[in-house]
Amino acid sequence: MQKEGGSSQPAGECDIGFIGLGVMGSNLTLNLADHGYRIACFDLDPSKVDAIIAQDANERGDREARVVGCNSFTELLKNLKSPHMIILSVPAGEPVDHVCNHLIDAGIEADDIVVDTGNSLWTDSVEREARFKGKFLFFSTAVSGGEVGARFGPSLMPSGDRYAWTRLEPVLKAIAAKVDAKTGKPIESFTPGKPVTEGEPCATYIGPQGAGHYVKMVHNGIEYADMQLICETYHIMRDALDMTPAEIAAVFRRWNEGKLNSYLMEISAEVLEQLDPETQQPLVDVILDKAGQKGTGLWTAVSALQLGSPAQTITSAVFARSISALKDERLLASKKLQGPAPLNLESSQKLAMIEQLEQALYCSKICAYAQGFQLMATAAKEHGWELEFGEIAKIWRAGCIIRAVFLQSIAQAYEQDEHLDNLLMAPYFAEQITEFQSDWRSAIAQATLAGIPCPGMMSALSYYDAYRSAVLPANLLQGQRDYFGAHTYQRTDKPAGKKFHIAWSDPQRPQIAIKR
Amino acid sequence: MQKEGGSSQPAGECDIGFIGLGVMGSNLTLNLADHGYRIACFDLDPSKVDAIIAQDANERGDREARVVGCNSFTELLKNLKSPHMIILSVPAGEPVDHVCNHLIDAGIEADDIVVDTGNSLWTDSVEREARFKGKFLFFSTAVSGGEVGARFGPSLMPSGDRYAWTRLEPVLKAIAAKVDAKTGKPIESFTPGKPVTEGEPCATYIGPQGAGHYVKMVHNGIEYADMQLICETYHIMRDALDMTPAEIAAVFRRWNEGKLNSYLMEISAEVLEQLDPETQQPLVDVILDKAGQKGTGLWTAVSALQLGSPAQTITSAVFARSISALKDERLLASKKLQGPAPLNLESSQKLAMIEQLEQALYCSKICAYAQGFQLMATAAKEHGWELEFGEIAKIWRAGCIIRAVFLQSIAQAYEQDEHLDNLLMAPYFAEQITEFQSDWRSAIAQATLAGIPCPGMMSALSYYDAYRSAVLPANLLQGQRDYFGAHTYQRTDKPAGKKFHIAWSDPQRPQIAIKR
Repeated sequence: MQKEGGSSQPAGECDIGFIGLGVMGSNLTLNLADHGYRIACFDLDPSKVDAIIAQDANERGDREARVVGCNSFTELLKNLKSPHMIILSVPAGEPVDHVCNHLIDAGIEADDIVVDTGNSLWTDSVEREARFKGKFLFFSTAVSGGEVGARFGPSLMPSGDRYAWTRLEPVLKAIAAKVDAKTGKPIESFTPGKPVTEGEPCATYIGPQGAGHYVKMVHNGIEYADMQLICETYHIMRDALDMTPAEIAAVFRRWNEGKLNSYLMEISAEVLEQLDPETQQPLVDVILDKAGQKGTGLWTAVSALQLGSPAQTITSAVFARSISALKDERLLASKKLQGPAPLNLESSQKLAMIEQLEQALYCSKICAYAQGFQLMATAAKEHGWELEFGEIAKIWRAGCIIRAVFLQSIAQAYEQDEHLDNLLMAPYFAEQITEFQSDWRSAIAQATLAGIPCPGMMSALSYYDAYRSAVLPANLLQGQRDYFGAHTYQRTDKPAGKKFHIAWSDPQRPQIAIKR
Repeated sequence: MQKEGGSSQPAGECDIGFIGLGVMGSNLTLNLADHGYRIACFDLDPSKVDAIIAQDANERGDREARVVGCNSFTELLKNLKSPHMIILSVPAGEPVDHVCNHLIDAGIEADDIVVDTGNSLWTDSVEREARFKGKFLFFSTAVSGGEVGARFGPSLMPSGDRYAWTRLEPVLKAIAAKVDAKTGKPIESFTPGKPVTEGEPCATYIGPQGAGHYVKMVHNGIEYADMQLICETYHIMRDALDMTPAEIAAVFRRWNEGKLNSYLMEISAEVLEQLDPETQQPLVDVILDKAGQKGTGLWTAVSALQLGSPAQTITSAVFARSISALKDERLLASKKLQGPAPLNLESSQKLAMIEQLEQALYCSKICAYAQGFQLMATAAKEHGWELEFGEIAKIWRAGCIIRAVFLQSIAQAYEQDEHLDNLLMAPYFAEQITEFQSDWRSAIAQATLAGIPCPGMMSALSYYDAYRSAVLPANLLQGQRDYFGAHTYQRTDKPAGKKFHIAWSDPQRPQIAIKR
């Protein structure tokens, strides 16, 4: 049954079918409508279908209605042009299969495309693609940017069948966030009916099925690290430099004008400037310091561990959230466990430390991104994906949470050398760290002496120092392992892979003469 | 067919059946024989049965043979007293099921016990216990200590059916490593036929099926951290203090007399004193600095992430191994990525730093163990295990890789307060860190300035500093999350669980007046 007044479109004239009209789904639908697409919509909850029709009517002004309500899978298909293109925004897991099976019953055909935009586990998507082969083309796209992104331009990470992509490309590029190619900055409009149509779209084909969701997962892992590093900077300023939230916000706003320009920097300043409507205190002081998490940071860390790709800064951000959750224990511990004496800095030293912190945050951020890109490269090798890291950096310049001018520099680094082993090795970033590392080290050393935890910054620095170490103490470690477990070792002067072992229990083995 | 000369025992007189005569199995068998048990042995490879008979004959001197060779599961059962007690030492996974099914075919009974001593995944063991219920009692024990431990006294972490444990207890306690209860030090004998029979055995009932293997996994995670911390100390001495392996070994030997006394400290000195037989260089300098790993550290880190239990130091040790494996990349990076200027310490400063390093290693080690015990507590809560942490610390005092006097202090801490939230909160350890923290901070600050990576020490310090923080910057983080994702926050002045949200896009929301 077509909703009254919902649309004047006759059946079979809609461009896209949309299933699942929650927060993300309804906003994506309105975004599509803004770009001229006619959408047939369905949700198991008919009130959501009514709501989207009403919202379109409310926002569209004079233009014709572009949203058609449907009350069954069959009706949805009937309203679509052939071959069908259907987008899902339903909870990850079983609901995706449920909808796909209903579409099969409703008569979906082999050349039709179903695009899953949910937070599906990427391995589930790989399975689905295989399972639905021949019945329809199952495609996925990860969506980043939350509610506002969905409505006015998200960052999209599509993956799956290449032929399906050629048909989806104009649609996904239309609704994606846009970037000024020269500056790397977002071109934004938050006015319904006035979508951004110029600029580079934040949507690029990532690779075979699952690759897009994997890349999105790493995006979230980087986001965890980014947020943690900003929080550590705040913590040092607050507790070691005795600054107020407003003072810190002012510094963040200044930094946001320069190389640290990013959405997260900007909103951190906004949060610090926010007054609690109830107490008129800075809001940050009444927010309980127990961090929540929804799992993507954890998945990134687990994947890094399993693939043997060092991603210590991302992982430290996950653990920082875990330890924050132990509020009751921390309150007890804060009374019992001693810290160091305060630094007692003079005001000129404080100013100097603020400058150092900018560089510390920046250098740590470079390392966090280096870890994320290294992890994607390792995963790509493992799964046979050909990821284009420059393109990935580009589509993160707008629409998503980690959007920042910084990503323009990353894109350029990969444009100069697409086979870059590690972001740290890009001439630009290598020079930046050379220039700023003494400030970075200084800030961490002072936080260490002041007793302010900065696991993110520390893990970033030790990542940098380990990565540039020609010789790490893993030689001693291999000696230990050979000693207690006969695990053998390789030699620096023999071909790789050849294994050696010392008979450690032999009292006659040659030892260095030691004065005891 | 009974092997000729293998034994004079008539059928049905053996105390224990042993299946799987690899390195661990044959050594456990000889250990059992040393303690007076008569063992019926079987292996799919008959040559291994011959070998163990020969080895027993070779080692036993005048005493009667205690090892009986069998060439089938049926014959093995026939040689055993009833009810049967059978120990398996076969590869984890399918082989365990294979043997269990063969034992069922051979006529094993409901009251018989099968003990798996392999490196089984603990969840597999839980499944097996359920699957074989009514057919026989499936029990597990994790074994730590490698080849030498198996032969002369391992640390054993048994878990499963309590009634099975009452029957196994005398056997497992007999063959386990022994400790002098007063000093907490191992009582050792490495002479066949002269087993240690006095002292406290390193075997205690851990809990329901799987708990023992979980505890063993955490043991290995702690071992990774312990090794990494020693390696970092070595690295700092080597590269920032310009010490030779022999000089470092001498320091390690001195430390090994004090609170850092441990097997790993001792063997680290031994490794550093070892000459390469081929080049007559210190061996450590010809060992390739690429660390291997077999997975247990990784599993521990993954479990910590999944349970939300901060175990950053254990995880950093896993990632340190990963980054060591990137030798080729590191060699390139070492030429391109700049480090800081050298510290250029005077010799009195060097001596001071060596002293600081002892405290840094010690305090970091306390934190690594605190993380491991915290993880076990979290897992226990999750799975309904009642782990006795004092007893676990006790059975790690000998036989296993992390054996150390330090574990005596941990055991005492849990004896004083079995509900200790965190090792750091034990008065003894709290005082120790208070006493030594300035050296700890100093050493890390100097390594930071010198460019020596010390991810383990740094993560340990930030764990300590975060744990004792009444307020962490997770308040800002929750503000960020509410801003971009409407994830809501809790308030410090409202009941736990109540959720709040700011309408961030409202231009009228109250903000702190900022000079821009």
